Amino acid sequence: MNPDHHQYVHGHSDRESERLRYQASKLAELLHQDTRYPPGSRVLEAACGVGAQTVILARNSPGAEFVSVDISPEALVTAKDRVFREGILNVAFRHADMYDLPFGPETFDHVFVCFLLEHLPDPLLALNNLKGILRIKGTLTVIEGDHGSALFYPDSPDAHRVIDGLVQLQRQAGGNALIGRELWHLMTDAGFADVTVSPRQVYADCSRPDSIEGVKHIFIAMVKGVREEAISRGLVDKETWDKGIGALYRTTEQGGTFCYTFFKAVGYRER
Amino acid sequence: MNPDHHQYVHGHSDRESERLRYQASKLAELLHQDTRYPPGSRVLEAACGVGAQTVILARNSPGAEFVSVDISPEALVTAKDRVFREGILNVAFRHADMYDLPFGPETFDHVFVCFLLEHLPDPLLALNNLKGILRIKGTLTVIEGDHGSALFYPDSPDAHRVIDGLVQLQRQAGGNALIGRELWHLMTDAGFADVTVSPRQVYADCSRPDSIEGVKHIFIAMVKGVREEAISRGLVDKETWDKGIGALYRTTEQGGTFCYTFFKAVGYRER
Repeated sequence: MNPDHHQYVHGHSDRESERLRYQASKLAELLHQDTRYPPGSRVLEAACGVGAQTVILARNSPGAEFVSVDISPEALVTAKDRVFREGILNVAFRHADMYDLPFGPETFDHVFVCFLLEHLPDPLLALNNLKGILRIKGTLTVIEGDHGSALFYPDSPDAHRVIDGLVQLQRQAGGNALIGRELWHLMTDAGFADVTVSPRQVYADCSRPDSIEGVKHIFIAMVKGVREEAISRGLVDKETWDKGIGALYRTTEQGGTFCYTFFKAVGYRER
Repeated sequence: MNPDHHQYVHGHSDRESERLRYQASKLAELLHQDTRYPPGSRVLEAACGVGAQTVILARNSPGAEFVSVDISPEALVTAKDRVFREGILNVAFRHADMYDLPFGPETFDHVFVCFLLEHLPDPLLALNNLKGILRIKGTLTVIEGDHGSALFYPDSPDAHRVIDGLVQLQRQAGGNALIGRELWHLMTDAGFADVTVSPRQVYADCSRPDSIEGVKHIFIAMVKGVREEAISRGLVDKETWDKGIGALYRTTEQGGTFCYTFFKAVGYRER
């Protein structure tokens, strides 16, 4: 989740940690249901962040052995604590940099990556490095969002400006918030074989209160989290920001709708 | 498919008719698989256009009796001919205007609408009229696209300008090419009960040649079809148009991806 805690655009507050946990639990079925690793397999989770996905991954594949790494020592402490409290025993944690992985060639049977590439200046290099530590015929699974997929009613130019502010902020930090649509070419360019991408779309209207809560507590909360930085960097002015956030909340009220698409890709190491 | 053949933004060429048939057959599974009407039920298809959906609808529910209407006499001739050639016997055709339907109250058990509301200046009035001819507890099914859902790689401002040109052209003709996201509030506002909306997303990359062909022959062909009108009305200049179309084709080549979302809504007449 977190390639470099100085660069992580959403910050490391308790609120952000809680948002990530809520996001993982709400989206667990949609994003994780088809990821199951066989007993005895060694799986690298890169990067685990505060462990929001780790708990779900490890529970879904209780016989697999996970090594979860992150570049942020603080995030690892939180992740370890969470996994310990949940009584999960099949996860080991380790400090690691995606650009300098502390593992030998073909160490892992599978690699899992979620919400990582969007924060990396060179996602292709990271994928190449991950390929190196994966055994031949091992799988790489990648899940990323794409903020350009946000579609809502009522539509609002201010809401788009606010989302675009987050996209620009992430770009200035070296990341790419529109990376979901790129997973196919990134994995193929990195030399993975039989790459299969499946979009996973979230849809919310008033008849689905759980999904509406998800929009508020995952997407809008994420956007709100960068308010000070987006305004102080002049990406969006204060008035537009507040109008845009108001317009996003309006989509969660009577008659409103909100869509967002995550992309999940799976590929094999061929040789 | 066609509320008013003078206003139908995509025109009535043989090429457009062929595009509509291709679209219907390629998207049949995605859009129609969960629509089945019981034997003996009377179903109104409003508006059938050239019969692209009619063939699929009638085949999927061979025991139901369909009445397919359209405002365009020319389209009805094409639709009748197609259904006759396919050997389908459970469809009757009739000329009708959505704003002045030639049916008494509660005539139909179910009503089916596909790619119609996007062309109507007053979709809410049309839905109200359709509710009137539906029996209590009868269902209304609506399928519409949303051009704002087009998401692609490589991204291109010119491609967005071209798509936006089509959206504006459709708006000038009184329609709304971004109506998919509005189905929930439109059906609810029209008084339908238990409205359920499900987005249906198409995704294409090079590993899915069928989907790539769909993007070319459905979406890009539709956009290309309005070239002369969009340019002559000054919505997009010629150079931008050609660059934008080129950029759309680029998304169907190596490394490219393309997503589009249709929305399907079902509701009941409560009283």
